Amino acid sequence: MRALRLMAWKSEAELTEAPAPTPGPGQVVIKIGGAGACHSDLHLMHDFTAGSLPWSPPFTLGHENAGWVHELGVGVTGLEVGQPVAVMGAWGCGVCQRCRLGIDAYCEDPDRAPIPSGGGGLGLDGGMADLMLVDNARHLIALPEGLTPAQAAPLTDAGLTPYHAVRRSLPKLMPGSTAVIIGVGGLGHVGVQILKAVTAAQVIAVDTRQEALDLATGCGADQALLADDSTVAAIRDATSGHGADVVIDMVGSDETLALAGQSVRTLGDLTLVGIAGGTLPVSFFSLPYEASVQSTYWGSRPELIEVLDLAARGLIAPKVTTFGLDQAMEAYRRMRAGELLGRAVIVP
Amino acid sequence: MRALRLMAWKSEAELTEAPAPTPGPGQVVIKIGGAGACHSDLHLMHDFTAGSLPWSPPFTLGHENAGWVHELGVGVTGLEVGQPVAVMGAWGCGVCQRCRLGIDAYCEDPDRAPIPSGGGGLGLDGGMADLMLVDNARHLIALPEGLTPAQAAPLTDAGLTPYHAVRRSLPKLMPGSTAVIIGVGGLGHVGVQILKAVTAAQVIAVDTRQEALDLATGCGADQALLADDSTVAAIRDATSGHGADVVIDMVGSDETLALAGQSVRTLGDLTLVGIAGGTLPVSFFSLPYEASVQSTYWGSRPELIEVLDLAARGLIAPKVTTFGLDQAMEAYRRMRAGELLGRAVIVP
Amino acid sequence: MRALRLMAWKSEAELTEAPAPTPGPGQVVIKIGGAGACHSDLHLMHDFTAGSLPWSPPFTLGHENAGWVHELGVGVTGLEVGQPVAVMGAWGCGVCQRCRLGIDAYCEDPDRAPIPSGGGGLGLDGGMADLMLVDNARHLIALPEGLTPAQAAPLTDAGLTPYHAVRRSLPKLMPGSTAVIIGVGGLGHVGVQILKAVTAAQVIAVDTRQEALDLATGCGADQALLADDSTVAAIRDATSGHGADVVIDMVGSDETLALAGQSVRTLGDLTLVGIAGGTLPVSFFSLPYEASVQSTYWGSRPELIEVLDLAARGLIAPKVTTFGLDQAMEAYRRMRAGELLGRAVIVP
Amino acid sequence: MRALRLMAWKSEAELTEAPAPTPGPGQVVIKIGGAGACHSDLHLMHDFTAGSLPWSPPFTLGHENAGWVHELGVGVTGLEVGQPVAVMGAWGCGVCQRCRLGIDAYCEDPDRAPIPSGGGGLGLDGGMADLMLVDNARHLIALPEGLTPAQAAPLTDAGLTPYHAVRRSLPKLMPGSTAVIIGVGGLGHVGVQILKAVTAAQVIAVDTRQEALDLATGCGADQALLADDSTVAAIRDATSGHGADVVIDMVGSDETLALAGQSVRTLGDLTLVGIAGGTLPVSFFSLPYEASVQSTYWGSRPELIEVLDLAARGLIAPKVTTFGLDQAMEAYRRMRAGELLGRAVIVP
Repeated sequence: MRALRLMAWKSEAELTEAPAPTPGPGQVVIKIGGAGACHSDLHLMHDFTAGSLPWSPPFTLGHENAGWVHELGVGVTGLEVGQPVAVMGAWGCGVCQRCRLGIDAYCEDPDRAPIPSGGGGLGLDGGMADLMLVDNARHLIALPEGLTPAQAAPLTDAGLTPYHAVRRSLPKLMPGSTAVIIGVGGLGHVGVQILKAVTAAQVIAVDTRQEALDLATGCGADQALLADDSTVAAIRDATSGHGADVVIDMVGSDETLALAGQSVRTLGDLTLVGIAGGTLPVSFFSLPYEASVQSTYWGSRPELIEVLDLAARGLIAPKVTTFGLDQAMEAYRRMRAGELLGRAVIVP
Repeated sequence: MRALRLMAWKSEAELTEAPAPTPGPGQVVIKIGGAGACHSDLHLMHDFTAGSLPWSPPFTLGHENAGWVHELGVGVTGLEVGQPVAVMGAWGCGVCQRCRLGIDAYCEDPDRAPIPSGGGGLGLDGGMADLMLVDNARHLIALPEGLTPAQAAPLTDAGLTPYHAVRRSLPKLMPGSTAVIIGVGGLGHVGVQILKAVTAAQVIAVDTRQEALDLATGCGADQALLADDSTVAAIRDATSGHGADVVIDMVGSDETLALAGQSVRTLGDLTLVGIAGGTLPVSFFSLPYEASVQSTYWGSRPELIEVLDLAARGLIAPKVTTFGLDQAMEAYRRMRAGELLGRAVIVP
Repeated sequence: MRALRLMAWKSEAELTEAPAPTPGPGQVVIKIGGAGACHSDLHLMHDFTAGSLPWSPPFTLGHENAGWVHELGVGVTGLEVGQPVAVMGAWGCGVCQRCRLGIDAYCEDPDRAPIPSGGGGLGLDGGMADLMLVDNARHLIALPEGLTPAQAAPLTDAGLTPYHAVRRSLPKLMPGSTAVIIGVGGLGHVGVQILKAVTAAQVIAVDTRQEALDLATGCGADQALLADDSTVAAIRDATSGHGADVVIDMVGSDETLALAGQSVRTLGDLTLVGIAGGTLPVSFFSLPYEASVQSTYWGSRPELIEVLDLAARGLIAPKVTTFGLDQAMEAYRRMRAGELLGRAVIVP
Repeated sequence: MRALRLMAWKSEAELTEAPAPTPGPGQVVIKIGGAGACHSDLHLMHDFTAGSLPWSPPFTLGHENAGWVHELGVGVTGLEVGQPVAVMGAWGCGVCQRCRLGIDAYCEDPDRAPIPSGGGGLGLDGGMADLMLVDNARHLIALPEGLTPAQAAPLTDAGLTPYHAVRRSLPKLMPGSTAVIIGVGGLGHVGVQILKAVTAAQVIAVDTRQEALDLATGCGADQALLADDSTVAAIRDATSGHGADVVIDMVGSDETLALAGQSVRTLGDLTLVGIAGGTLPVSFFSLPYEASVQSTYWGSRPELIEVLDLAARGLIAPKVTTFGLDQAMEAYRRMRAGELLGRAVIVP
């Protein structure tokens, strides 16, 4: 079968032939229907070196996957060949407290996982291929009616990650509240859609690019603000001077974190999702009282089921551009050049 | 009447005669039964200068107060002369969303409060006197049976502040969890008692002084650790390597915040209560996933009612040393010298 | 001034002249801008007799009120003459645990309230008049921009009551869930709007009248079902056989409660709002595991602020028919005859 | 191996020889270290007939089990032979929303479970034997240090069931609140211990037997009340007239449910655990506002981990009488005669 494989650190992935996988006990092979291309794949190709991650090439890229059940390992129940499924991307030990609640991304015993702090497309073979081996049947979620694997694939990360960030803050997003999304890219525009679908909060989007602001407005944002010296004042104006109840930073630079800190309200949430590497210095008086700062990473299985429901019912609809498997590197090049709005999905 | 008044910044308070207050509409005068002496009073006497706070001397010290209703202003209902009461210390605007939930300390419209970001003993006359004017009857909480004003006074701050910090984290303090208290002083030792009373969490106390650790152990701490190079490892050992679900830093220096950050668990809480002025740099990878960092300040009226219940039933019992009003400055001097364990309460 | 007064049990209210009220300390007189007419007013006129309630005529009707501040009693702060305000309808003791959280409707010390288990229009003079005396300034909520008193008045009950019922169940109304509203009258149609505004749940409305179902569909219901022998099966079909996560019964007869019980899911909520007098027998196996049954009554001050925000931003818009004060009895007659869809509001 | 098997409805179980089980893929055989004897086993032997349950004899009794891993089926990871484990008793489909959160007892797709609405000892072979086949490795929880299988076994039901009932109500059990346990038997006395361990609520136990009240007092109950005409008044007295925030009925007769309904507070919980078959008629005015009524059944995997932690740390300690496998029927006979206080555990 074909597979887009990262052969070494500091290199572009290559489309090659690879042997088709076979499932061991408890495992499942799926036929890929869609594999999302993520900015973190660019980091894998360009930024990491030996030792910076607990695993290394070669492996097939693609950690946002959906498809159809192709072959079941012995002992797998509750799934049928041909059934459309989405794949949870993080694969933990399966027995620690975090994994038991379905949030393998926060696995507390990574040395007992199939690969430490990774999964398919992250150290193990991922979904940029015709077939993919899923380590354990629990990572598969049956697709609801009305959703194809190609539509579902980006939801497993670009949908799930902002959904988790929003969902944990729902008690702070009652009517009268305001949410700010900083960075309207692949995750951010879905974040705006999610906020509009699941809350009655006022939603403000912030970006440096006018086209991203237009996308945010199209996704339902109540306000879309250019990131500049007036942004904090505009957010304060829109919130009776109180600041935003929830600020989600999809970028994560020093600048966006500073903006987030100046925009958040007492008792609010400042959630860091983007990995641009910025730092926010927190001291007793640097933020409003009891504004909480935290980083979130990916989401949980029960949450992915909810994301798929939102999409199947048309309440969220990520902006997607599709590419064939042989165009995958072209997709990454356009993403790297900032020429893609929304998410790229590879359809083998 | 007598009153211990701060007459100017950068000076010690003076015991003087002052006119007895009379209540306006909606106000209440109470006869003081106890007024706690707080480290922040030392800051008021020694550290602040003109312009650093939105109010200035002269005013009577004492923001941890309890006593008996002495005189009711017109329009006050639900209180009777002679009734023992505790005084909520922060006095907000009374109509913003925060004040409506009883957390005046987080008032969002301080310019409409009787004094901005203050209260009795903080810009307005406080409880280190024979009588005290309480700006609004809503700040008074009837004492439950079994609790004297002298016992109740320190609970309004040294009890309420750690209680609020613990209570907001209760969902993370289920059986199997661990809480760490850094700094076993006036607030910290009550924090240990509260944790033991309201949760089944393992409680670990950390301090630099052996006598403080002994106090923590006497308050029920499961472990009491000297703060040194081995503290983080000891906390990890006690938590199967996971870290603590909740860390409450009652000190707030660079060092204690760093310790807190290295001790906290994924999905945990790192709550900063102490105002030693330290900073914790937060970035995507600097803390475990979704560990939340926040500062808390004081607490809410409904929470104070709960604190008073705990004390009335003997489930918490702050360590207290009492002084007469004419010994108040002596109490502050011993506090400043680090010679007091637990809390000092002035009983006129 | 004019006032529509209930002079005796078992009689229709009469439009008469009454003395204009003056505010005592802490009280406020408002100029009425709108007063909603409620089914429970019909009960007051037609069903109750001496001794069945803890208060008795004469008093002015109208417990859903909004207007403008007309005169402030001494000691009232935070309000200005001319300011538009909504009136919380239930007036409790103000000091019990329930009142402190703003839910006077559940006051636990009614004998210390201005009237036991009542308020303006319920034992004390209400808003079907030119002016109304509000017992305490805390019962007034400033109107947000974009909302007139005539629009706000019905929100204080017909908006607040379904909002409270929905809000308490929000954790059960995540994506993938289903809510059922039984009875699409004055409260039910707002309930549908609220569910669509604040959740992504599937919303199913049930009624016996086609015009009510059309109203529900217009309010955004995903399905509108005639109440008959097939209703339970239709709800099960729409929920993969699981039943509805939340069922709110706005009618409350034996029949609707039985329907609710057969429609609810494990871990769901069955909330009784309507007072048609029905009974649901609950035993270990009569309902799915951990489906919770409860009656709710009215709502809290913080919740009313949220309802007003939803309406000011156009996210809910109760269907209203307005009448002059001299047409008020005509409004009640049409309501009693079932000729009114949505809510009647009296505008003096 | 030996096994205590129910051979037919309406008969006593028999100690016989049975073939040792072997694990299929994903399954595990454990060596039994303890199997709790439950009142529901008496119902299985004496009360049920063909068709009343979705499964039928013969099968081995025992649904409260713990032991050591004896043999692993292919594909099982995260467990080692010899490791001490507790067994979750309810075995659901494993893929529905309820099972994914670890509450197989509420499985919504029972026809896809290994047996509908059952588990080991409930339709499939249970733990009253030397060895037991566990259908899926996910049902096993590693024992924490300090807990033997014989101690752990009863915790999987007599500990987990009251724990679940208490845990879901924790937000209503803050300081100042009151919990009532009706029925101090095998589950009730553990319920008292749990409440004292995880809350600061006042705990009131009610029973008809003085020895049960003595047991409750020994478990830490603040009050132990004989169930008679004065019980409701005594509960009201102990709660300033408000009623109890949480009432858990471990009996479930008409009488105990009526007592519960008269004892519960506004916004409280009335939770039905016992299956004596009683009914509580619920109407708008029959209970205080927003008191919630629900039945709970067993609990979840994450909750069992918490129960085991409480017991390992000595915070709960069920009263247990142990019997050999050949004395098992004697244990049931004494239980049926009401001669056992606390729980009987069979140790092979």
